[in-house]
Amino acid sequence: MRNDQRNNNDLRPITITPNFVKHPEGSVLIQVGDTKVICNASVEDRVPPFMRGQGKGWITAEYAMLPRATDQRNIRESSKGKISGRTMEIQRLIGRALRSVVDLNNIGERTVWVDCDVIQADGGTRTASITGAFVAVVLAFGKLLNNKAINKMPVTDFLAATSVGVLPEGTEVLDLNYYEDSQAHVDMNVVMTGSGEFVEIQGTGEEATFSYSQLQSLLRLADEGMKEINRIQRETLGELAGRIGETVKNKEDA
Amino acid sequence: MRNDQRNNNDLRPITITPNFVKHPEGSVLIQVGDTKVICNASVEDRVPPFMRGQGKGWITAEYAMLPRATDQRNIRESSKGKISGRTMEIQRLIGRALRSVVDLNNIGERTVWVDCDVIQADGGTRTASITGAFVAVVLAFGKLLNNKAINKMPVTDFLAATSVGVLPEGTEVLDLNYYEDSQAHVDMNVVMTGSGEFVEIQGTGEEATFSYSQLQSLLRLADEGMKEINRIQRETLGELAGRIGETVKNKEDA
Amino acid sequence: MRNDQRNNNDLRPITITPNFVKHPEGSVLIQVGDTKVICNASVEDRVPPFMRGQGKGWITAEYAMLPRATDQRNIRESSKGKISGRTMEIQRLIGRALRSVVDLNNIGERTVWVDCDVIQADGGTRTASITGAFVAVVLAFGKLLNNKAINKMPVTDFLAATSVGVLPEGTEVLDLNYYEDSQAHVDMNVVMTGSGEFVEIQGTGEEATFSYSQLQSLLRLADEGMKEINRIQRETLGELAGRIGETVKNKEDA
Amino acid sequence: MRNDQRNNNDLRPITITPNFVKHPEGSVLIQVGDTKVICNASVEDRVPPFMRGQGKGWITAEYAMLPRATDQRNIRESSKGKISGRTMEIQRLIGRALRSVVDLNNIGERTVWVDCDVIQADGGTRTASITGAFVAVVLAFGKLLNNKAINKMPVTDFLAATSVGVLPEGTEVLDLNYYEDSQAHVDMNVVMTGSGEFVEIQGTGEEATFSYSQLQSLLRLADEGMKEINRIQRETLGELAGRIGETVKNKEDA
Amino acid sequence: MRNDQRNNNDLRPITITPNFVKHPEGSVLIQVGDTKVICNASVEDRVPPFMRGQGKGWITAEYAMLPRATDQRNIRESSKGKISGRTMEIQRLIGRALRSVVDLNNIGERTVWVDCDVIQADGGTRTASITGAFVAVVLAFGKLLNNKAINKMPVTDFLAATSVGVLPEGTEVLDLNYYEDSQAHVDMNVVMTGSGEFVEIQGTGEEATFSYSQLQSLLRLADEGMKEINRIQRETLGELAGRIGETVKNKEDA
Amino acid sequence: MRNDQRNNNDLRPITITPNFVKHPEGSVLIQVGDTKVICNASVEDRVPPFMRGQGKGWITAEYAMLPRATDQRNIRESSKGKISGRTMEIQRLIGRALRSVVDLNNIGERTVWVDCDVIQADGGTRTASITGAFVAVVLAFGKLLNNKAINKMPVTDFLAATSVGVLPEGTEVLDLNYYEDSQAHVDMNVVMTGSGEFVEIQGTGEEATFSYSQLQSLLRLADEGMKEINRIQRETLGELAGRIGETVKNKEDA
Repeated sequence: MRNDQRNNNDLRPITITPNFVKHPEGSVLIQVGDTKVICNASVEDRVPPFMRGQGKGWITAEYAMLPRATDQRNIRESSKGKISGRTMEIQRLIGRALRSVVDLNNIGERTVWVDCDVIQADGGTRTASITGAFVAVVLAFGKLLNNKAINKMPVTDFLAATSVGVLPEGTEVLDLNYYEDSQAHVDMNVVMTGSGEFVEIQGTGEEATFSYSQLQSLLRLADEGMKEINRIQRETLGELAGRIGETVKNKEDA
Repeated sequence: MRNDQRNNNDLRPITITPNFVKHPEGSVLIQVGDTKVICNASVEDRVPPFMRGQGKGWITAEYAMLPRATDQRNIRESSKGKISGRTMEIQRLIGRALRSVVDLNNIGERTVWVDCDVIQADGGTRTASITGAFVAVVLAFGKLLNNKAINKMPVTDFLAATSVGVLPEGTEVLDLNYYEDSQAHVDMNVVMTGSGEFVEIQGTGEEATFSYSQLQSLLRLADEGMKEINRIQRETLGELAGRIGETVKNKEDA
Repeated sequence: MRNDQRNNNDLRPITITPNFVKHPEGSVLIQVGDTKVICNASVEDRVPPFMRGQGKGWITAEYAMLPRATDQRNIRESSKGKISGRTMEIQRLIGRALRSVVDLNNIGERTVWVDCDVIQADGGTRTASITGAFVAVVLAFGKLLNNKAINKMPVTDFLAATSVGVLPEGTEVLDLNYYEDSQAHVDMNVVMTGSGEFVEIQGTGEEATFSYSQLQSLLRLADEGMKEINRIQRETLGELAGRIGETVKNKEDA
Repeated sequence: MRNDQRNNNDLRPITITPNFVKHPEGSVLIQVGDTKVICNASVEDRVPPFMRGQGKGWITAEYAMLPRATDQRNIRESSKGKISGRTMEIQRLIGRALRSVVDLNNIGERTVWVDCDVIQADGGTRTASITGAFVAVVLAFGKLLNNKAINKMPVTDFLAATSVGVLPEGTEVLDLNYYEDSQAHVDMNVVMTGSGEFVEIQGTGEEATFSYSQLQSLLRLADEGMKEINRIQRETLGELAGRIGETVKNKEDA
Repeated sequence: MRNDQRNNNDLRPITITPNFVKHPEGSVLIQVGDTKVICNASVEDRVPPFMRGQGKGWITAEYAMLPRATDQRNIRESSKGKISGRTMEIQRLIGRALRSVVDLNNIGERTVWVDCDVIQADGGTRTASITGAFVAVVLAFGKLLNNKAINKMPVTDFLAATSVGVLPEGTEVLDLNYYEDSQAHVDMNVVMTGSGEFVEIQGTGEEATFSYSQLQSLLRLADEGMKEINRIQRETLGELAGRIGETVKNKEDA
Repeated sequence: MRNDQRNNNDLRPITITPNFVKHPEGSVLIQVGDTKVICNASVEDRVPPFMRGQGKGWITAEYAMLPRATDQRNIRESSKGKISGRTMEIQRLIGRALRSVVDLNNIGERTVWVDCDVIQADGGTRTASITGAFVAVVLAFGKLLNNKAINKMPVTDFLAATSVGVLPEGTEVLDLNYYEDSQAHVDMNVVMTGSGEFVEIQGTGEEATFSYSQLQSLLRLADEGMKEINRIQRETLGELAGRIGETVKNKEDA
């Protein structure tokens, strides 16, 4: 039994509240257990200088935590005057993951800025961010469709993320909370599409290692969890969910 | 009639949700119309180096906006690597205001960090921050009282803030929303105590000026609004409200 | 009696030396008691990017202290790599105040950079900066008039600033020196026009508060002082003083 | 056939020159094809503040490229005044990987600083850095053993890294050069121990995804390459290679 | 004839006003032609961490220009967030030069901070800074002698600096003004002691070179000028001048 | 006898390896005794904004040390977020020296970026950098000549640098190693052309001074050393050496 009474293959309760903030084109509050992240997708009608004139769009992400999202207060990165390595890793991961399921050729010369701001943290903030950001991005494209700014949903597939890991006693578990994460010998974040392909696998064994058979078990757990997460995303999106996949990305074009 | 159908002396609807984030000693979400700010008060068991060994505490505040709290997305201050002048002005104001109603000699060598994070902005974010931060700080001291870390509520009086201003056509109004604020010829932020004394007056006439009689009208409007805000703070605090004033600050000690 | 033998409503001796530095379009050394500030106004023939093409000008201010302008040496802000909150507040205030009496529509696409550098400090450096900067700006416009770069003095009224405050024993005083400022329970900076309108009121009661009747007394003191300061500015400006008010700002245009 | 005539499962030629720079405790130049990295391990007789007094050591890594290590000159990170997200990710990865095979309890309160400086880049700089850094660290511990500063080799197993990926036409390949890396649809860095356990898997499909069976093939290729790399490391280390594994890390202690 | 009617071996008029700012232990305004620099020497009763416990003192210098000290306004280094290479070179030079004539073993564990702030520039600001800073430092030590904080003047000899250069037409000149400096093919700053020894020679031929015989002529000019500058320093210092040389530095101790 | 058995007028062994890194247009590894510097010259087909449209080119230099190039590890300047004064001084010196022997009017609107990266330091890194950078720059221009991008070698003369100094016992020596440099009372860097003219003299007597006759002896030593260094540069450059001087710089044009 885990410290919060879940089975090894149980996700924590997930809720996704759409339109949480009024200004952004897409906005959700995602809660995964006690982890709460505001994911806002903002559409800007231009692309970074290095991409101008190609007729393509861009998606980029930023990630931050409120200072007291955690048990101990953290100094703001704006006060320190620089962004930590951890933050950079996470925001690069979120952006990369989202781009893997969006056909950037079909959104015009626009940038989608995705802001994931953690207001309460209890483990899994980066995977919750990806899961919530996906919904915010689809909502933002929904608004562009409504305004006839684009004419096809440019999102090719569902996208979600979760964590899996090996606890000290050797059990493999799904969706680690903060307590488990701080104890785990192996920690792996997995990003997958709705059709079950991998987008990103980041498995780390700090001061520990893991075998091929452990890897297999962990990926099986992730795959299971993903199906449930996709179901919740679909529910939140309602009608818009049906338009995902309208665009197919040609791998050779990538 | 104002653009949102209020009378000149009407506040927008205000709600204060206590215990909004689970980790901080004191936490509220304050909503003033469409302006929403998370105010977290974190207690740290030490003071800055320059204050050590004096047996006194300290209160300091930080303020930030989510990038898409506003109609146009703003670049994060952490990305820019520095804090804007506007942010600095606001966080210095919040800290100064809170310190005026707390007896720092009665909280031990502790620092109270107050974080005001605007998640949605529609004018008046700095005054909403002060009003909400006051409640968060009282909640935090309530926790210290419960833990017997302190034995008297060190808060000497209620504290709240609001804005008043002169619209282009010359009417004086209370609690400006973003639209009004961007039009106003004169903009004044007023911080007052529960007993009606001023803590801070910041009146500014960019590209305009104001007369002594206008000043008098504006301060009357502020005073009226303050009473209603104090009522809502009192309601949110419940029993703790009764302990405010338990400590009296000796002006000569200041 | 005050620590320097002044009456409560006495200003310190003020002298304004025009053309103090040879390169700037307008330059003065202002001395208010032992406070000495070099105020230089530099005219640049372009405006910031966000204002281009509107046919309007801009005025912006910077403020700094020499490291040993004060009793204890301060670390340079250039060495620290960032500007303090206090400096930002002051330079924003100076710029805002100057803009309130200049018709930016009548100076072409030019920026006036105002640099206030305190070489010796004894309280009231921000108000001395505003009072001196006003004269430097009029001198700079005088040079533009001479060169026929503009054809009307764009300054609509006189502008000056002073401080008022409440000393610990409760007396209200005008033009606080450093010793008084460090003791005062209430500190208020007032910026006014030659015709007696307010441009800015910043009243602060750190660890203290003030009543409406105290506010009234303080503003009366400020108003008195302002008349004397305007007289000295007028004297320094000589003939140019007569051209102030040649342009009238239409409040509706602001 | 690949652009440099290798088979899919061929590594590029690898040479590791020990004692390349004279000052560091451990120093190698590693060449993997045209990629050349200087890996220096410096031993400092103290640990970071947060670890003092625990009797344990620490290993940390930094990574940089000479500006013209690449085809186009890059601006120095010291000139930009900040470290890029890419650099941060890489140096965190190197440090984490090294710590997984060193028993930090057996090196005293010492920090090993590992500097990986790329002097010429042709793909795979992060994996070459890990492979070379491992040898530099063992050499540095060899010097401590010689000086009797420690009495057991604290390295528990061999450690090496390589990349695998999927080329646009779908073939899976080992050890991508720069040309291949810039084309690849899937890019995966794998860090493994001498006994075949995983330390880190980072698989990324930017604008593409990969299936479970592709993952299996890629990991098989990595596993093959690793054996050859370990052989070259062993050769470079000579006698010291025999002492690796003298210390066994207790997983429960991690 | 030079552009300001001087002969080749003429200095510009030099005046040194002692006690220019009231707070510093030593303060002068030095004017060399139209170049004006405030030189303040501040004594702090401690040394930097790396020197503690050695019973020795330290002298360090900082240099800056007001933004409009020059013909075109320069952006403040505090706004840019970093100090330029030129500024760093100059402040390192000033500090090094002063240390060459002060016996740091005889000033206790004190730091002398020398601030050279150029308020008006017309060439030769770094050499004027050295010449003025020397006087400010002697004044500061005079105050320490008065207070019995030290009992011997720790200054071993006079110190002054000037520039020499080669104009485009090939003539060698002393003490270049800004116009000459911007034209010169060779520019050399020379720092010398009262007894005619060199402390620093910095000769630079950007986009030009100079011969051994030109070097000889330039150094002769510098030597001549130095005698006149020492005379003015001596006059400014009055009685204190007589105490210079009271301490003799043992070269072997250096 | 010196600590490494050299005579006072002996250089350390010098080798220059051309084409050390494959990407840059010009690249050498220079070794002067145990000092090793990689000098890369990169040609970029544009100039900085302030030089555009003049038909001229620019040469600029950057200098850095690997953290463990020295006996004690140094913190990276990229980690500190700023470049030290020492680094700035050195890179400004290298750029200035190179520009003195290149006719910038004959290289088109191109920038040559020279990167000097010290991989092992034993004194004289700045002079080795200049000597090596000169060769790298000639190689880079050789490539432009080959590509017919330019049609004359724009380098007007040979350029090299060395150090001379006075050891504590008073002997004057050539080419100081690190041990000597740290002991020396006087330290002088001399940059000269192949025809024996001075480009730069930087003589410094920190906590010591030097006489005119010492200066003469030091410059004689430098002149001697320079001839040997030029011989080695000539040898490395082979045929390209013969083209140096093809362009003559008109001093009046400078």
